[in-house]
Amino acid sequence: MTETRKRRLPRKVREQQIIDAAVQVFSKRGYHAASVDEIAELAGISKPMVYLYLDSKEGLFLACVHREAGRLTEAFRDAARGAHSPGLRLRAGLSAFFAFVSDHRDSWVVLHRQTSAMSETVTAEVSKARRSVMAQVEGLVRAGIAESAGAGAPELGDEEADFVAHALVGAADTLTDWMESHPRETPERVTQRLMNMVWVGMRNVLAGESLEP
Amino acid sequence: MTETRKRRLPRKVREQQIIDAAVQVFSKRGYHAASVDEIAELAGISKPMVYLYLDSKEGLFLACVHREAGRLTEAFRDAARGAHSPGLRLRAGLSAFFAFVSDHRDSWVVLHRQTSAMSETVTAEVSKARRSVMAQVEGLVRAGIAESAGAGAPELGDEEADFVAHALVGAADTLTDWMESHPRETPERVTQRLMNMVWVGMRNVLAGESLEP
Repeated sequence: MTETRKRRLPRKVREQQIIDAAVQVFSKRGYHAASVDEIAELAGISKPMVYLYLDSKEGLFLACVHREAGRLTEAFRDAARGAHSPGLRLRAGLSAFFAFVSDHRDSWVVLHRQTSAMSETVTAEVSKARRSVMAQVEGLVRAGIAESAGAGAPELGDEEADFVAHALVGAADTLTDWMESHPRETPERVTQRLMNMVWVGMRNVLAGESLEP
Repeated sequence: MTETRKRRLPRKVREQQIIDAAVQVFSKRGYHAASVDEIAELAGISKPMVYLYLDSKEGLFLACVHREAGRLTEAFRDAARGAHSPGLRLRAGLSAFFAFVSDHRDSWVVLHRQTSAMSETVTAEVSKARRSVMAQVEGLVRAGIAESAGAGAPELGDEEADFVAHALVGAADTLTDWMESHPRETPERVTQRLMNMVWVGMRNVLAGESLEP
């Protein structure tokens, strides 16, 4: 690729620059307090141009949510694809999730903290991404437990696997706060702690261990 | 107490009626789409009277968050106070949490889904309640693991207990969705599943078990 063929940047590139700036500003100020002026200034683009490209403040927010939710689910999926067993795939996926949050704190703040009181279009976008990750986690939990339990062991039903997936995803959401207040913990280490606790617990519960013997 | 001493209801009672109605409407419509007209109508009180008592739409929302967050943290604390060991106290607290969400779905929707993009006053109120529950859970986790591990076993450091507390609280948050889609599961059963998984996992991890032997 050569530098640029003409002075004006292609539409796609400009749009990405605007979204980059918008993620930063929405993360810092919150949706309602964020101003399109500040986003335009940070992107180095005029305000009318921002409206031309992304239509409205809500359109801009939706573009941020769409792009960042896509990046996050892709990071999880790509990482989970590589490893050789379900347990390792789940671990790789969770690790990619924590690494994403660690590297893109602004994106996570926008996705996790600022979408809940928004319009249905926005919440639908976030729910879609969340359901996609939840379904992958559920599949990996079921396959992983079946594999690690070995022949003859009880299998994990759909309902249990879905329960574990909800517990894992919820724990991971909240552990992003713990990770933020423990900056020396790597995403891999956070993942190892979480997997240890849940996976080992699951395996032992299936083997018959219970809270009150 | 006799019925009512005069025709007009005392201010406190009216306020509670308005908040009851507001929780329902905010839960159903979301903060921005909710109208004070609908809240006033549902409460059977004139709109000027609503403003007289609760000042503004945001004041009304804040009153809802304040009351419901208080009820939820109290339910947790009161339940956790009764039992005889840290493990049982944690279980009682979690069970009270799931029962609260099950019985007061509207309150939970307002607290959990609709506060994140709101003003700092509102988010501070929610954070305070969350920190209070998190601190209680952390204390119970540490004490419970110390007790169940017995003499000579490794103790759980502050950092680990805080990690487990974050994982548990986050898992519980998200399991409210699972519980909603499994209406035949009681709060007690959901709690037992969660405690089983996390507690048994924790105990075995402390005893030296790990994901990859």
